[in-house]
Amino acid sequence: MRLLLISNSTNAGEAYLDHPKQHIKNFLGNTPRTALFIPYAGVTISFNDYENRVKERFNEIGHHIQSIHHFKDPVVAVKKAEVIIVGGGNTFYLLKSLQDHKLIKPVREKVLSGTPYIGWSAGANVACPTISTTNDMPIAQPASFNAFHIIPFQINPHYLDTNPDGHAGETREMRIEEFIKVNRNVFVVGLREGTMLLIENDTIQLIGARNVRIFKFGHHPVELKQGDDFKFLLT
Amino acid sequence: MRLLLISNSTNAGEAYLDHPKQHIKNFLGNTPRTALFIPYAGVTISFNDYENRVKERFNEIGHHIQSIHHFKDPVVAVKKAEVIIVGGGNTFYLLKSLQDHKLIKPVREKVLSGTPYIGWSAGANVACPTISTTNDMPIAQPASFNAFHIIPFQINPHYLDTNPDGHAGETREMRIEEFIKVNRNVFVVGLREGTMLLIENDTIQLIGARNVRIFKFGHHPVELKQGDDFKFLLT
Repeated sequence: MRLLLISNSTNAGEAYLDHPKQHIKNFLGNTPRTALFIPYAGVTISFNDYENRVKERFNEIGHHIQSIHHFKDPVVAVKKAEVIIVGGGNTFYLLKSLQDHKLIKPVREKVLSGTPYIGWSAGANVACPTISTTNDMPIAQPASFNAFHIIPFQINPHYLDTNPDGHAGETREMRIEEFIKVNRNVFVVGLREGTMLLIENDTIQLIGARNVRIFKFGHHPVELKQGDDFKFLLT
Repeated sequence: MRLLLISNSTNAGEAYLDHPKQHIKNFLGNTPRTALFIPYAGVTISFNDYENRVKERFNEIGHHIQSIHHFKDPVVAVKKAEVIIVGGGNTFYLLKSLQDHKLIKPVREKVLSGTPYIGWSAGANVACPTISTTNDMPIAQPASFNAFHIIPFQINPHYLDTNPDGHAGETREMRIEEFIKVNRNVFVVGLREGTMLLIENDTIQLIGARNVRIFKFGHHPVELKQGDDFKFLLT
Protein backbone atom coordinates (compact mmCIF):
# COMPACT_ATOMS: atom_id res chain seq x y z
CA MET A 1 0.00 0.00 0.00
CA ARG A 2 1.04 3.61 -0.59
CA LEU A 3 -0.45 6.48 1.37
CA LEU A 4 0.36 10.14 1.82
CA LEU A 5 -1.50 11.34 4.90
CA ILE A 6 -1.30 15.09 5.37
CA SER A 7 -2.22 17.00 8.53
CA ASN A 8 -3.71 20.04 6.80
CA SER A 9 -4.38 21.45 3.36
CA THR A 10 -3.12 24.90 4.12
CA ASN A 11 -0.58 26.47 6.44
CA ALA A 12 -1.57 29.79 8.02
CA GLY A 13 -0.90 32.60 5.56
CA GLU A 14 -0.18 30.30 2.59
CA ALA A 15 -2.16 29.32 -0.52
CA TYR A 16 -4.48 26.28 -0.58
CA LEU A 17 -2.56 22.95 -0.76
CA ASP A 18 0.68 24.87 -1.18
CA HIS A 19 2.77 23.23 1.53
CA PRO A 20 2.23 19.59 0.44
CA LYS A 21 2.30 20.29 -3.33
CA GLN A 22 5.87 19.18 -3.97
CA HIS A 23 5.43 16.06 -1.82
CA ILE A 24 2.27 15.13 -3.71
CA LYS A 25 4.27 15.50 -6.94
CA ASN A 26 7.01 13.23 -5.59
CA PHE A 27 4.39 10.73 -4.44
CA LEU A 28 2.55 10.60 -7.79
CA GLY A 29 5.65 10.76 -10.01
CA ASN A 30 6.17 12.37 -13.41
CA THR A 31 3.77 10.31 -15.52
CA PRO A 32 0.47 12.23 -15.67
CA ARG A 33 -2.25 10.49 -13.69
CA THR A 34 -5.94 11.09 -13.21
CA ALA A 35 -6.95 10.71 -9.59
CA LEU A 36 -10.43 10.11 -8.23
CA PHE A 37 -11.26 12.92 -5.82
CA ILE A 38 -13.72 12.43 -2.96
CA PRO A 39 -15.08 15.85 -1.87
CA TYR A 40 -17.68 14.58 0.65
CA ALA A 41 -16.05 16.39 3.61
CA GLY A 42 -16.98 19.71 2.04
CA VAL A 43 -20.04 21.19 3.72
CA THR A 44 -20.00 24.92 3.08
CA ILE A 45 -18.35 24.56 -0.35
CA SER A 46 -20.07 22.95 -3.37
CA PHE A 47 -18.53 19.74 -4.71
CA ASN A 48 -17.86 21.50 -8.04
CA ASP A 49 -16.06 24.39 -6.36
CA TYR A 50 -14.11 21.99 -4.18
CA GLU A 51 -13.11 19.93 -7.20
CA ASN A 52 -11.93 23.02 -9.09
CA ARG A 53 -9.88 24.22 -6.17
CA VAL A 54 -8.04 20.92 -5.91
CA LYS A 55 -7.81 20.41 -9.69
CA GLU A 56 -6.02 23.72 -10.14
CA ARG A 57 -3.30 22.70 -7.72
CA PHE A 58 -2.93 19.17 -9.16
CA ASN A 59 -2.70 20.53 -12.70
CA GLU A 60 0.24 22.67 -11.60
CA ILE A 61 2.15 19.48 -10.80
CA GLY A 62 1.17 17.71 -14.01
CA HIS A 63 -1.72 15.59 -12.72
CA HIS A 64 -5.45 15.58 -13.12
CA ILE A 65 -8.41 14.83 -10.87
CA GLN A 66 -12.07 13.95 -11.37
CA SER A 67 -14.54 14.22 -8.56
CA ILE A 68 -16.58 11.16 -7.63
CA HIS A 69 -19.83 13.18 -7.63
CA HIS A 70 -19.78 13.15 -11.47
CA PHE A 71 -19.95 9.35 -11.59
CA LYS A 72 -23.24 7.51 -11.71
CA ASP A 73 -21.94 4.65 -9.62
CA PRO A 74 -19.37 5.77 -7.03
CA VAL A 75 -18.43 2.17 -6.18
CA VAL A 76 -17.48 1.51 -9.81
CA ALA A 77 -15.55 4.80 -9.86
CA VAL A 78 -13.52 3.61 -6.86
CA LYS A 79 -12.90 0.20 -8.40
CA LYS A 80 -11.52 1.82 -11.56
CA ALA A 81 -9.52 4.56 -9.82
CA GLU A 82 -5.83 5.07 -10.57
CA VAL A 83 -5.32 7.11 -7.41
CA ILE A 84 -7.75 7.99 -4.61
CA ILE A 85 -7.74 11.42 -2.99
CA VAL A 86 -9.88 12.40 -0.01
CA GLY A 87 -10.01 16.09 0.86
CA GLY A 88 -10.55 17.77 4.23
CA GLY A 89 -13.62 19.39 5.76
CA ASN A 90 -15.97 17.83 8.28
CA THR A 91 -14.96 14.28 9.21
CA PHE A 92 -18.42 13.21 10.45
CA TYR A 93 -20.07 14.45 7.28
CA LEU A 94 -17.39 12.73 5.19
CA LEU A 95 -17.73 9.39 6.97
CA LYS A 96 -21.53 9.48 6.82
CA SER A 97 -21.39 10.14 3.05
CA LEU A 98 -18.84 7.37 2.53
CA GLN A 99 -21.12 4.99 4.46
CA ASP A 100 -24.25 6.18 2.65
CA HIS A 101 -22.52 5.53 -0.69
CA LYS A 102 -21.26 2.14 0.57
CA LEU A 103 -17.66 3.08 -0.14
CA ILE A 104 -15.89 1.98 3.04
CA LYS A 105 -15.04 -1.54 1.95
CA PRO A 106 -14.34 -0.74 -1.74
CA VAL A 107 -11.87 2.05 -0.89
CA ARG A 108 -10.18 -0.07 1.77
CA GLU A 109 -9.73 -3.02 -0.56
CA LYS A 110 -8.56 -0.84 -3.44
CA VAL A 111 -5.89 0.88 -1.36
CA LEU A 112 -4.76 -2.34 0.34
CA SER A 113 -4.32 -3.83 -3.14
CA GLY A 114 -1.91 -1.04 -4.10
CA THR A 115 -3.83 1.99 -5.41
CA PRO A 116 -2.15 5.15 -4.03
CA TYR A 117 -4.16 7.18 -1.51
CA ILE A 118 -3.73 10.83 -0.61
CA GLY A 119 -5.73 12.39 2.21
CA TRP A 120 -5.49 15.62 4.14
CA SER A 121 -7.13 16.53 7.43
CA ALA A 122 -10.48 14.63 7.46
CA GLY A 123 -9.12 12.63 4.51
CA ALA A 124 -6.14 11.51 6.63
CA ASN A 125 -8.43 10.72 9.56
CA VAL A 126 -10.64 8.31 7.63
CA ALA A 127 -7.61 6.17 6.69
CA CYS A 128 -7.46 5.27 10.41
CA PRO A 129 -9.47 2.54 12.19
CA THR A 130 -12.06 5.10 13.36
CA ILE A 131 -12.71 8.85 13.28
CA SER A 132 -12.49 8.98 17.07
CA THR A 133 -9.47 11.32 17.02
CA THR A 134 -11.00 14.02 14.84
CA ASN A 135 -11.24 17.64 16.00
CA ASP A 136 -14.39 18.26 14.02
CA MET A 137 -17.90 19.03 15.18
CA PRO A 138 -20.36 16.09 15.00
CA ILE A 139 -22.77 17.95 12.70
CA ALA A 140 -24.09 14.69 11.22
CA GLN A 141 -24.30 11.21 12.67
CA PRO A 142 -22.52 8.40 10.82
CA ALA A 143 -23.87 4.88 11.31
CA SER A 144 -20.65 4.07 13.12
CA PHE A 145 -17.31 5.76 13.79
CA ASN A 146 -15.50 2.96 11.91
CA ALA A 147 -13.53 4.28 8.96
CA PHE A 148 -11.33 2.76 6.20
CA HIS A 149 -8.95 1.16 8.71
CA ILE A 150 -6.16 1.04 6.15
CA ILE A 151 -3.59 1.84 8.83
CA PRO A 152 -3.71 0.38 12.36
CA PHE A 153 -3.14 3.65 14.30
CA GLN A 154 -5.01 6.92 14.77
CA ILE A 155 -4.01 10.32 13.44
CA ASN A 156 -4.99 13.57 15.10
CA PRO A 157 -4.67 16.11 12.28
CA HIS A 158 -3.93 19.80 12.96
CA TYR A 159 -2.30 18.76 16.23
CA LEU A 160 -1.63 21.83 18.31
CA ASP A 161 0.01 22.39 21.65
CA THR A 162 -1.81 25.28 23.21
CA ASN A 163 -5.13 27.00 23.50
CA PRO A 164 -5.40 30.68 22.58
CA ASP A 165 -4.40 32.88 25.52
CA GLY A 166 -7.05 33.15 28.21
CA HIS A 167 -9.00 30.10 26.98
CA ALA A 168 -9.53 27.29 29.48
CA GLY A 169 -11.13 24.53 27.37
CA GLU A 170 -9.36 21.18 27.16
CA THR A 171 -6.05 21.23 25.31
CA ARG A 172 -5.60 18.79 22.44
CA GLU A 173 -3.30 16.71 24.64
CA MET A 174 -6.03 16.44 27.30
CA ARG A 175 -8.51 15.29 24.64
CA ILE A 176 -6.14 12.62 23.34
CA GLU A 177 -5.40 11.49 26.93
CA GLU A 178 -9.15 10.83 27.20
CA PHE A 179 -9.10 8.86 23.95
CA ILE A 180 -6.25 6.57 25.03
CA LYS A 181 -7.83 6.04 28.44
CA VAL A 182 -10.86 4.55 26.66
CA ASN A 183 -8.96 2.99 23.72
CA ARG A 184 -5.90 1.53 25.38
CA ASN A 185 -4.32 -0.46 22.58
CA VAL A 186 -4.17 2.23 19.92
CA PHE A 187 -1.35 4.63 19.10
CA VAL A 188 -2.34 8.22 18.35
CA VAL A 189 -0.09 10.37 16.18
CA GLY A 190 -0.49 14.08 16.83
CA LEU A 191 0.33 15.38 13.35
CA ARG A 192 1.17 19.08 13.49
CA GLU A 193 0.26 21.40 10.63
CA GLY A 194 2.80 21.36 7.80
CA THR A 195 3.67 17.70 8.33
CA MET A 196 2.59 14.41 6.72
CA LEU A 197 3.20 10.67 6.87
CA LEU A 198 4.40 8.74 3.85
CA ILE A 199 3.50 5.06 4.17
CA GLU A 200 4.81 2.53 1.66
CA ASN A 201 3.99 -1.06 2.56
CA ASP A 202 5.79 -1.64 5.86
CA THR A 203 7.79 1.59 5.90
CA ILE A 204 6.62 4.89 7.30
CA GLN A 205 8.32 8.27 7.16
CA LEU A 206 7.54 11.67 8.59
CA ILE A 207 7.85 14.56 6.14
CA GLY A 208 8.02 18.10 7.48
CA ALA A 209 10.05 20.29 9.78
CA ARG A 210 7.96 19.83 12.92
CA ASN A 211 7.89 16.88 15.33
CA VAL A 212 4.97 14.55 15.77
CA ARG A 213 3.72 13.73 19.25
CA ILE A 214 2.89 10.06 19.88
CA PHE A 215 0.39 8.94 22.51
CA LYS A 216 -0.26 5.47 23.92
CA PHE A 217 -2.05 4.51 27.11
CA GLY A 218 0.30 4.00 30.04
CA HIS A 219 3.21 5.78 28.34
CA HIS A 220 4.48 9.32 28.44
CA PRO A 221 3.85 11.11 25.10
CA VAL A 222 6.93 10.96 22.86
CA GLU A 223 8.18 13.55 20.36
CA LEU A 224 9.63 12.11 17.14
CA LYS A 225 11.13 13.89 14.16
CA GLN A 226 11.83 13.37 10.47
CA GLY A 227 14.28 10.48 10.05
CA ASP A 228 13.17 8.68 13.24
CA ASP A 229 11.90 5.12 13.13
CA PHE A 230 8.08 4.93 12.96
CA LYS A 231 7.78 1.26 12.08
CA PHE A 232 6.26 0.43 15.49
CA LEU A 233 3.08 2.20 14.35
CA LEU A 234 2.46 -0.42 11.69
CA THR A 235 2.88 -3.52 13.85
CA MET B 1 -38.40 24.39 34.27
CA ARG B 2 -35.30 25.95 35.79
CA LEU B 3 -31.86 25.53 34.28
CA LEU B 4 -28.47 27.12 34.79
CA LEU B 5 -26.35 26.25 31.76
CA ILE B 6 -22.73 27.30 32.16
CA SER B 7 -20.15 27.49 29.38
CA ASN B 8 -17.19 26.28 31.43
CA SER B 9 -16.27 25.17 34.93
CA THR B 10 -13.14 27.22 35.16
CA ASN B 11 -11.84 30.47 33.73
CA ALA B 12 -8.16 30.52 32.76
CA GLY B 13 -6.05 31.16 35.86
CA GLU B 14 -8.93 30.76 38.34
CA ALA B 15 -9.94 28.00 40.76
CA TYR B 16 -12.32 25.19 39.75
CA LEU B 17 -15.99 26.31 39.53
CA ASP B 18 -15.00 29.69 40.94
CA HIS B 19 -16.59 31.97 38.34
CA PRO B 20 -20.13 30.47 38.49
CA LYS B 21 -20.14 29.86 42.28
CA GLN B 22 -22.15 32.91 43.29
CA HIS B 23 -24.65 32.35 40.46
CA ILE B 24 -25.12 28.73 41.53
CA LYS B 25 -25.80 29.99 45.06
CA ASN B 26 -28.38 32.47 43.75
CA PHE B 27 -29.94 29.71 41.64
CA LEU B 28 -30.22 27.20 44.51
CA GLY B 29 -31.18 29.71 47.22
CA ASN B 30 -30.34 29.78 50.91
CA THR B 31 -32.12 26.62 52.09
CA PRO B 32 -29.52 23.82 52.06
CA ARG B 33 -30.22 21.30 49.31
CA THR B 34 -28.67 18.00 48.31
CA ALA B 35 -28.18 17.74 44.57
CA LEU B 36 -27.70 14.60 42.52
CA PHE B 37 -24.38 14.90 40.69
CA ILE B 38 -23.78 13.08 37.39
CA PRO B 39 -20.01 12.70 36.87
CA TYR B 40 -20.16 10.53 33.70
CA ALA B 41 -18.32 13.08 31.54
CA GLY B 42 -15.19 12.52 33.62
CA VAL B 43 -12.75 10.26 31.78
CA THR B 44 -9.31 10.88 33.24
CA ILE B 45 -10.64 11.62 36.74
CA SER B 46 -12.31 9.00 38.97
CA PHE B 47 -15.97 9.54 39.83
CA ASN B 48 -15.01 9.79 43.52
CA ASP B 49 -12.40 12.45 42.86
CA TYR B 50 -14.77 14.33 40.59
CA GLU B 51 -17.50 14.22 43.22
CA ASN B 52 -15.15 15.52 45.92
CA ARG B 53 -13.98 18.36 43.74
CA VAL B 54 -17.53 19.53 43.09
CA LYS B 55 -18.73 18.81 46.65
CA GLU B 56 -16.07 21.08 48.13
CA ARG B 57 -17.26 24.01 46.07
CA PHE B 58 -20.96 23.36 46.74
CA ASN B 59 -20.32 23.07 50.47
CA GLU B 60 -18.79 26.55 50.40
CA ILE B 61 -22.15 27.92 49.27
CA GLY B 62 -24.18 25.92 51.78
CA HIS B 63 -25.29 23.02 49.57
CA HIS B 64 -24.49 19.37 49.30
CA ILE B 65 -24.11 16.90 46.46
CA GLN B 66 -24.17 13.12 46.10
CA SER B 67 -22.84 11.42 43.01
CA ILE B 68 -25.11 9.08 41.11
CA HIS B 69 -22.44 6.37 40.99
CA HIS B 70 -23.14 5.56 44.67
CA PHE B 71 -26.75 4.63 43.93
CA LYS B 72 -27.73 1.09 43.07
CA ASP B 73 -30.41 2.24 40.66
CA PRO B 74 -29.51 5.48 38.86
CA VAL B 75 -33.03 5.86 37.43
CA VAL B 76 -34.50 5.83 40.94
CA ALA B 77 -31.83 8.30 42.04
CA VAL B 78 -32.93 10.67 39.26
CA LYS B 79 -36.61 10.25 40.12
CA LYS B 80 -35.92 11.19 43.75
CA ALA B 81 -33.48 14.04 43.01
CA GLU B 82 -34.01 17.49 44.51
CA VAL B 83 -31.62 19.09 41.99
CA ILE B 84 -29.71 17.55 39.08
CA ILE B 85 -26.16 18.59 38.27
CA VAL B 86 -24.21 17.40 35.23
CA GLY B 87 -20.49 18.19 35.18
CA GLY B 88 -18.18 18.73 32.22
CA GLY B 89 -15.62 16.48 30.56
CA ASN B 90 -16.15 14.47 27.40
CA THR B 91 -19.61 14.94 25.90
CA PHE B 92 -19.59 11.69 23.87
CA TYR B 93 -18.58 9.67 26.90
CA LEU B 94 -21.22 11.43 29.00
CA LEU B 95 -24.00 10.83 26.51
CA LYS B 96 -23.05 7.19 26.01
CA SER B 97 -23.10 6.62 29.78
CA LEU B 98 -26.46 8.39 30.13
CA GLN B 99 -27.85 6.18 27.36
CA ASP B 100 -26.28 3.01 28.81
CA HIS B 101 -27.89 3.81 32.17
CA LYS B 102 -31.22 4.62 30.45
CA LEU B 103 -31.29 8.08 31.97
CA ILE B 104 -32.21 10.26 28.98
CA LYS B 105 -35.98 10.14 29.42
CA PRO B 106 -36.01 10.16 33.27
CA VAL B 107 -33.79 13.25 33.48
CA ARG B 108 -35.73 15.04 30.76
CA GLU B 109 -39.09 14.37 32.45
CA LYS B 110 -37.76 15.28 35.88
CA VAL B 111 -36.40 18.64 34.72
CA LEU B 112 -39.46 19.45 32.60
CA SER B 113 -41.58 18.82 35.68
CA GLY B 114 -39.65 21.46 37.64
CA THR B 115 -36.52 19.93 39.21
CA PRO B 116 -33.66 22.46 38.88
CA TYR B 117 -30.82 21.50 36.54
CA ILE B 118 -27.27 22.81 36.55
CA GLY B 119 -24.81 21.83 33.84
CA TRP B 120 -21.47 23.13 32.73
CA SER B 121 -19.62 22.47 29.47
CA ALA B 122 -20.64 18.90 28.43
CA GLY B 123 -23.37 19.16 31.07
CA ALA B 124 -24.78 22.24 29.33
CA ASN B 125 -24.50 20.55 25.94
CA VAL B 126 -26.61 17.54 26.88
CA ALA B 127 -29.53 19.80 27.84
CA CYS B 128 -29.80 20.57 24.10
CA PRO B 129 -31.61 18.51 21.44
CA THR B 130 -28.34 16.80 20.42
CA ILE B 131 -24.63 16.90 21.21
CA SER B 132 -23.88 17.98 17.64
CA THR B 133 -22.37 21.30 18.72
CA THR B 134 -19.81 19.91 21.13
CA ASN B 135 -16.11 20.63 20.76
CA ASP B 136 -15.10 17.31 22.25
CA MET B 137 -13.33 14.37 20.71
CA PRO B 138 -15.58 11.41 19.80
CA ILE B 139 -13.64 8.96 21.99
CA ALA B 140 -16.69 6.73 22.47
CA GLN B 141 -19.71 6.18 20.28
CA PRO B 142 -23.14 6.90 21.75
CA ALA B 143 -26.11 5.01 20.28
CA SER B 144 -27.33 8.33 18.91
CA PHE B 145 -26.40 12.01 19.24
CA ASN B 146 -29.83 12.78 20.74
CA ALA B 147 -29.55 14.26 24.22
CA PHE B 148 -32.00 15.46 26.92
CA HIS B 149 -33.66 17.97 24.59
CA ILE B 150 -34.88 20.05 27.51
CA ILE B 151 -34.26 23.26 25.55
CA PRO B 152 -35.01 23.62 21.83
CA PHE B 153 -31.69 25.23 20.77
CA GLN B 154 -28.03 24.19 20.70
CA ILE B 155 -25.25 25.54 22.90
CA ASN B 156 -21.63 25.60 21.83
CA PRO B 157 -19.78 25.80 25.15
CA HIS B 158 -16.30 27.37 25.43
CA TYR B 159 -17.12 29.44 22.35
CA LEU B 160 -13.97 31.16 21.15
CA ASP B 161 -13.25 33.57 18.36
CA THR B 162 -9.78 32.74 17.17
CA ASN B 163 -7.30 29.97 16.69
CA PRO B 164 -3.88 30.23 18.32
CA ASP B 165 -1.49 32.27 16.15
CA GLY B 166 -0.13 30.37 13.18
CA HIS B 167 -2.80 27.64 13.35
CA ALA B 168 -4.93 27.13 10.23
CA GLY B 169 -7.56 24.59 11.36
CA GLU B 170 -11.23 25.58 11.15
CA THR B 171 -12.28 28.36 13.53
CA ARG B 172 -15.22 27.68 15.82
CA GLU B 173 -17.36 29.94 13.66
CA MET B 174 -16.52 27.86 10.58
CA ARG B 175 -17.49 24.68 12.43
CA ILE B 176 -20.83 26.14 13.52
CA GLU B 177 -21.45 27.40 9.96
CA GLU B 178 -21.14 23.76 8.90
CA PHE B 179 -23.61 22.70 11.59
CA ILE B 180 -26.29 25.21 10.57
CA LYS B 181 -25.82 24.33 6.89
CA VAL B 182 -26.84 20.75 7.73
CA ASN B 183 -29.29 21.62 10.56
CA ARG B 184 -31.13 24.62 9.19
CA ASN B 185 -33.89 25.12 11.73
CA VAL B 186 -31.82 25.21 14.88
CA PHE B 187 -30.34 28.21 16.69
CA VAL B 188 -26.81 27.79 18.02
CA VAL B 189 -25.66 29.88 20.96
CA GLY B 190 -21.90 30.38 21.07
CA LEU B 191 -21.47 30.66 24.85
CA ARG B 192 -18.12 32.23 25.67
CA GLU B 193 -16.17 31.20 28.76
CA GLY B 194 -17.29 32.99 31.91
CA THR B 195 -20.91 33.20 30.77
CA MET B 196 -24.07 31.18 31.40
CA LEU B 197 -27.77 31.04 30.56
CA LEU B 198 -30.43 31.15 33.25
CA ILE B 199 -33.67 29.63 31.98
CA GLU B 200 -36.83 29.85 34.07
CA ASN B 201 -39.92 28.55 32.28
CA ASP B 202 -40.31 30.89 29.31
CA THR B 203 -37.69 33.44 30.32
CA ILE B 204 -34.03 33.28 29.49
CA GLN B 205 -31.22 35.54 30.65
CA LEU B 206 -27.55 35.77 29.88
CA ILE B 207 -25.28 36.09 32.90
CA GLY B 208 -21.70 37.26 32.43
CA ALA B 209 -19.70 40.14 31.05
CA ARG B 210 -19.10 38.73 27.56
CA ASN B 211 -21.49 38.62 24.61
CA VAL B 212 -22.94 35.46 23.17
CA ARG B 213 -22.82 34.86 19.42
CA ILE B 214 -26.02 33.48 17.88
CA PHE B 215 -26.05 31.47 14.66
CA LYS B 216 -28.96 30.45 12.44
CA PHE B 217 -28.90 29.27 8.85
CA GLY B 218 -29.43 32.07 6.33
CA HIS B 219 -28.70 34.81 8.88
CA HIS B 220 -25.60 36.74 9.77
CA PRO B 221 -24.35 35.78 13.26
CA VAL B 222 -25.61 38.18 15.93
CA GLU B 223 -23.87 39.35 19.10
CA LEU B 224 -26.15 39.74 22.13
CA LYS B 225 -25.30 40.88 25.65
CA GLN B 226 -26.61 40.63 29.20
CA GLY B 227 -30.01 42.32 29.40
CA ASP B 228 -30.92 41.60 25.77
CA ASP B 229 -34.05 39.64 24.88
CA PHE B 230 -33.36 35.93 24.32
CA LYS B 231 -36.95 34.73 24.32
CA PHE B 232 -36.80 33.86 20.59
CA LEU B 233 -34.55 30.93 21.52
CA LEU B 234 -37.38 29.23 23.40
CA THR B 235 -40.07 29.49 20.73
